[in-house]
Parts: sequence; structure tokens; C-alpha cells
Amino acid sequence: MTSVRKRLTPAERRTQLLAVGTRLFATRPYDDVGIDEVAELAGVSQGLMYHYFASKRDFFAEIIRQESVRMVEITAPDTTLPVARQVGDGLRAYIHHVDTHEHGIRAINRGAMSADDGIQSIVTDELRVQQERILDALGTDARDDPAVRLAVRGWIAFVRATCLDWVDERSVDADTVYDICMRALDGLLGIGRPT
Amino acid sequence: MTSVRKRLTPAERRTQLLAVGTRLFATRPYDDVGIDEVAELAGVSQGLMYHYFASKRDFFAEIIRQESVRMVEITAPDTTLPVARQVGDGLRAYIHHVDTHEHGIRAINRGAMSADDGIQSIVTDELRVQQERILDALGTDARDDPAVRLAVRGWIAFVRATCLDWVDERSVDADTVYDICMRALDGLLGIGRPT
Repeated sequence: MTSVRKRLTPAERRTQLLAVGTRLFATRPYDDVGIDEVAELAGVSQGLMYHYFASKRDFFAEIIRQESVRMVEITAPDTTLPVARQVGDGLRAYIHHVDTHEHGIRAINRGAMSADDGIQSIVTDELRVQQERILDALGTDARDDPAVRLAVRGWIAFVRATCLDWVDERSVDADTVYDICMRALDGLLGIGRPT
Repeated sequence: MTSVRKRLTPAERRTQLLAVGTRLFATRPYDDVGIDEVAELAGVSQGLMYHYFASKRDFFAEIIRQESVRMVEITAPDTTLPVARQVGDGLRAYIHHVDTHEHGIRAINRGAMSADDGIQSIVTDELRVQQERILDALGTDARDDPAVRLAVRGWIAFVRATCLDWVDERSVDADTVYDICMRALDGLLGIGRPT
């Protein structure tokens, strides 16, 4: 073991461990990533690793929580822009995230963690934020229309399913995924037709 | 116990038990339905019930398999019709099915059975049939276009998610759900705009 154990504050150490885990879980299947590997890459003992996170599941859940917070921040809309642009910018950020975290996305959606209530509630909360943002951008009349609410929720499910299929096959590029999602949005709400 | 046990052939008995179960699981939560209740309603002993189905899970799986076969038959498209009509007719049948089997739909999609590989593969197979039918109706060029394939799969996920939300809230009627789904289809593929 050649890595040098640096003196970090507990907060710094925690951040470092999560950063290592984020990278590993993004690029490798959940079951292939071991806590021992994270510890080694971070230059700490497994014992210390378990001091910060009770289990691999808890470590992964914390990574998902952190990424979810980050996604909500990154995709915060510029509310001075037209609604299609607000939604479109958020969509691009999401597609980029899926593109660069495909294994983590898979683990959450149909892998080891797809039946974990704690992790699914993080995902559900994030989707709810995105839904409310779109309804905010559409305005009060839209917000009060149950058909619009249903359409917006369905669209978010569409985006999620389409991106998940996409990372498995990579049969089109990211711009095409974006266009497909915006075409669905245009059909549903009459906004965002790709030009 | 007032029910009279009739002499049925094994095939008839199996059909009867599945019919009783189908009704119960459609209208009540999975966890609320007991094998003892099915047995009593069918006028048989629990022992005989377990002779036909090894467990409640297996009984439910067989019901789902049977309903899936029925859905595939009911929604078989009339290929002489325009594609939007073919897809629209299948969609109406699916919405009606969800409407009348809401608890079963919930159990499969996010309840007790949402992580059961056997049951999920029945669902996945059915969705694949529906996807292939739409691609067949769209023609060879569409079938060979990866963007169209992605859009069709995403649309099926959209319909499934939207119907699931709908049965929870019942905030719009079935015709509105149909219109929302057809608007998404129109945006994606340029077919099926509601008139």
C-alpha cells in the first residue's frame, strides 16, 4: 500500500471518502465495488471507513443523497427565461449526469438498490422538486389543472426511463435523447418543440 | 361455511381459483388478501389450494401471467387500421384494465411484488410485445431508427407511469388519460393527435 494517509478533519475525510465512492459507483457496477477498495484508494483502514459509514449500503445511500442535492442545485432554473428553456436546461444537466454516472443510475433503478426504500425516497423527492419547478414555470392555471400535473409527472417518468434505456444501448447521441424528450414535452404541453 | 364444494376437473378447479384470486387482487391490496380467503370463497380447503399453488406469491404470479396473456390478446391490433388507431385502441384497453385492476397494478409496480424477478419478467415481456407492435405498425424505416425505438419504449414507460399515478389520484377521467398519452405520442412520432 503506497498511499500516504493524510491528516484530515473528520469532515474533510468524509468528503474525501464520498468523492472516491462517487467515482467508483458511477463507473462500475454496484456489486463490483468493495468497501475495502474505497478504503485503499482513500488511504485509510477499513475500520476507519466503517467509522464513517455503517455499511456499503449506507455509504452508497449517502453518495446518492449528496448527488441528488447537487443535481437539484445544478438544475435550479433561471426563472427569467421562457419555460421551455428552463425545462430544457434542466434536462441537459440531467442527461449529462446520467451519461457520466451510468452504473450508479442502473444500481438505483433496477439493480441492487431499486427496492431500497431509503434510496428510492431520495430519488422520489428529487423528482418531486423537478415536477414542482416545471409547474412553477408553467404558471398558476397549469398548476391547478390535474391533467397538466399528470402530464408533467408522466414526462419526468418518460425522461428517466428513456435515459436508462439510452445508457444501456448508446444507440443515439445525447443530443438525440434531448430532442426526443423535448418532443414529448411539446406534444404534452405545447412547449419546447426542437427547432 | 355455506359454500358447496363442486366436483370440478383439476383444470376447472385451477381456473376457478385463479378467477377468485384475480377479482380479490384487483380490488384489494396484496397484503390484505389471504390464501385462506381465496380457499373459502372457492369452497375448497387451504390444503387443496396449496396443492394447486405452492405459495401466495406463486398464485399471484400465475394470475399476473394469465392477465398478461389476456391483455396481449385483447390488444392485438387490427393491422388494416391506421397506426394511430391501432395504438389508440390498445391504449384504451390498457387504461380500462388499469381502471378495473388498480390494486393488482399497484402490487406489481411498487408494492410487495415490484422486486420479484419472475413477475417483473412477465411485465417486461408484455411491454416488449406492445413495443414491437407499435414498431411493426410504424413500418420498416421506423423500426430501424434507434431514435424511434427509444421514443416508443419511453412512451410505453410514460403510459405505465401515468396510469399508475392516475389510479392513485383519480383527479381526471379515463378519456383525459387517453388524451394525455396520445398527445405525448403525437409529439414523439407525429401520430395520434387528439381531434
